[in-house]
Amino acid sequence: MESLLGQVPLRFSRVPMFPFFDLAHYTASVMTLKEQRGVVDVAYRSPIACWFSAMLYCFGGSILSSLMLAEPPVAFLANTTSVLLASSVWYLIFYCPHDLAYRLVSFPPIQLMVAGMKEVTRTWKITGGVAHAHSHYKNAWIVMIAIGWARGAGGGLISNFEQLVRGVWKPETNELLKMSYPVKISLVGAVFFTMQQIHYLPVEKHDLMFLYTIFLVGMKITMMLTDHPPSPFAPFENILGPLLFGLRTAPPRARGEARVPHNGISSACSLTTGGETDESSKKKHSKKSD
Amino acid sequence: MESLLGQVPLRFSRVPMFPFFDLAHYTASVMTLKEQRGVVDVAYRSPIACWFSAMLYCFGGSILSSLMLAEPPVAFLANTTSVLLASSVWYLIFYCPHDLAYRLVSFPPIQLMVAGMKEVTRTWKITGGVAHAHSHYKNAWIVMIAIGWARGAGGGLISNFEQLVRGVWKPETNELLKMSYPVKISLVGAVFFTMQQIHYLPVEKHDLMFLYTIFLVGMKITMMLTDHPPSPFAPFENILGPLLFGLRTAPPRARGEARVPHNGISSACSLTTGGETDESSKKKHSKKSD
Amino acid sequence: MESLLGQVPLRFSRVPMFPFFDLAHYTASVMTLKEQRGVVDVAYRSPIACWFSAMLYCFGGSILSSLMLAEPPVAFLANTTSVLLASSVWYLIFYCPHDLAYRLVSFPPIQLMVAGMKEVTRTWKITGGVAHAHSHYKNAWIVMIAIGWARGAGGGLISNFEQLVRGVWKPETNELLKMSYPVKISLVGAVFFTMQQIHYLPVEKHDLMFLYTIFLVGMKITMMLTDHPPSPFAPFENILGPLLFGLRTAPPRARGEARVPHNGISSACSLTTGGETDESSKKKHSKKSD
Repeated sequence: MESLLGQVPLRFSRVPMFPFFDLAHYTASVMTLKEQRGVVDVAYRSPIACWFSAMLYCFGGSILSSLMLAEPPVAFLANTTSVLLASSVWYLIFYCPHDLAYRLVSFPPIQLMVAGMKEVTRTWKITGGVAHAHSHYKNAWIVMIAIGWARGAGGGLISNFEQLVRGVWKPETNELLKMSYPVKISLVGAVFFTMQQIHYLPVEKHDLMFLYTIFLVGMKITMMLTDHPPSPFAPFENILGPLLFGLRTAPPRARGEARVPHNGISSACSLTTGGETDESSKKKHSKKSD
Repeated sequence: MESLLGQVPLRFSRVPMFPFFDLAHYTASVMTLKEQRGVVDVAYRSPIACWFSAMLYCFGGSILSSLMLAEPPVAFLANTTSVLLASSVWYLIFYCPHDLAYRLVSFPPIQLMVAGMKEVTRTWKITGGVAHAHSHYKNAWIVMIAIGWARGAGGGLISNFEQLVRGVWKPETNELLKMSYPVKISLVGAVFFTMQQIHYLPVEKHDLMFLYTIFLVGMKITMMLTDHPPSPFAPFENILGPLLFGLRTAPPRARGEARVPHNGISSACSLTTGGETDESSKKKHSKKSD
Repeated sequence: MESLLGQVPLRFSRVPMFPFFDLAHYTASVMTLKEQRGVVDVAYRSPIACWFSAMLYCFGGSILSSLMLAEPPVAFLANTTSVLLASSVWYLIFYCPHDLAYRLVSFPPIQLMVAGMKEVTRTWKITGGVAHAHSHYKNAWIVMIAIGWARGAGGGLISNFEQLVRGVWKPETNELLKMSYPVKISLVGAVFFTMQQIHYLPVEKHDLMFLYTIFLVGMKITMMLTDHPPSPFAPFENILGPLLFGLRTAPPRARGEARVPHNGISSACSLTTGGETDESSKKKHSKKSD
């Protein structure tokens, strides 16, 4: 007879995501969208573009992994309940009189809870993606990592095209060139769950899910409570970067190229406009100006 | 024994699209393409890019709905007869000596007839899309609307990527941000036909097709004959916009953001170039200068 | 009893591509990537974006043809051996200390051999693509040409999106607007192999493969050894262009349009930056500056 404590991970791994955790995911996603620069303007000019953008934020991982596996990317629309739930969240957060819903969710304790619950859904998405890829391609561990990563980090990886829906185009930045924390941690998760799936990790799936989720939620809450959170990846990057890729040690101009802006057009334009800064600093700025 | 008049919608719904209505659709699509700014130049520099653009105009709905349902987007190429017909139309309108074909089709009565017949094909495409989606996803009415809309408005919805083929990139505008009349009416049609398909509308399919087509053709001809046509959607938008989304009543800067160009790069660039106007006004201008 | 000489094409057509020819293909592709402007900088800032770009160069044809036939575009990742081989080549060429691997492959005799072997894989890819499309769509010769072309020229046709991964966006140029030699010769090859497949060419497949490969390799080596190689397509283009499309004879401004930059934004920007030249001239320039 097992101890009750030992059953916690197993019971945890059977928690259903629908409706509460999904709701938190939709809320956190739509809140992130609303904090993007210019979105409120788009919401008043074209509700349908705003709605489509919100759906890409909420279901981006599902859409991207469908495209990668040649499954219908509109399949998520067939789950009418989820789409209506996400649409209601979108509607309340964008169009509620006096911004009531937005202000309510911005209330720090609620914000913390929503963010924590959203991270839980990430674990479920990654494991779902890895298992789904495994059912298509046996032992193709690269595919499993790719699909798990796409599911977990979906919204981020297609951000260029999500922005295009809103009339914004920033080719000089994408999540592969400058990976954000959620994209990195999803990749790490996808690697771990894939290793577990092909039995390279001597650990039960529900134990790994439990540990990974605790790490995700803990990190997220730490990052929200501290101002300048240290990246948990910084030590590894500082060791592995120079070792594997000669980062920082080898000068980037090794091949005799002057460091010209390799994307002449938009860089020149950004000079004209007085310097474009990246999305995150804008977001921080807009938050401060609120 | 039914009256002959009562059989009109049924007989009408059995009219085959191939070859005459399809021909009108290809002609109207290629004419629209030719009236875009800079296309004639592309046609002389790279016939193959121009041909590919023309195919995206003619078969855009089919390509988009295939992508959405994970069916081969090249499937339209397997219908060799249609592709050759569309290619012949493209060739005649672009490369006919002395622009004979273009001038012939620009002759107002012919233009009216072609435009009217093209609208008829829209009904057939929307119903085809809705029925096709219904055969894949039972009762998933959001998918049915999406596929019907994509088929009916196809060329418009992928216009950003169609322009990219010709070397034009206008990220600050797309058909979701600023819907044109054909895109709107296709969406309305997709909603109606979906409601009919899942038996929410107490009307026969062929009656709905007949009424919708009459409305489409009538509106199109009215719009072509009058200079400043009133949008049939304006009254609904004026009522529903403020009611649902607070349009016009709530100021867009509600969240304290200055109305900065939300797409710094291209907006700044367009200032430099002396102001970019939207495609439709360009088209009107080029028409006048003919 | 056949002569030994007559058996050469047949034996040649049975040469396996893996591992030596594939290796040459990956090497030549990654070398081409490394010679693009700004890539070395990206390689040090974000190895993962660089790796993804390299995979698009190595497996672009496979990815593009999968997308066109609605097959999983990640399928190439399931062939773990090939991916690991390509990744090793990418790693050595980009991050080898003192650029040893890059310098080794840049040594002219090796460069010639690698380039020649890469051209051999092109034949195999085109015939593979045509046969694969034939197995899906009987007698749909347009589809067969399209898939054969996509497989043979893959990397080039998706270059816009490959550049986007690296943060570069050049909408005013693409391989359809200004076809490069490999894209053209792949199209010609796809047409010939499709004609052979549907029995319009009275020639055996292995004979055609042999002749086409000899032409490919011969042309490639000639082009690498001479400074200003004449395009083998120039005579045909000079005859067919004016005949079919009125190129050069009909002035491009026939329809009364001033030759304004048809892509106002980026052209204006490029003026500001002192004129963007096309990729090939940049490449030549960077080569000279090495």
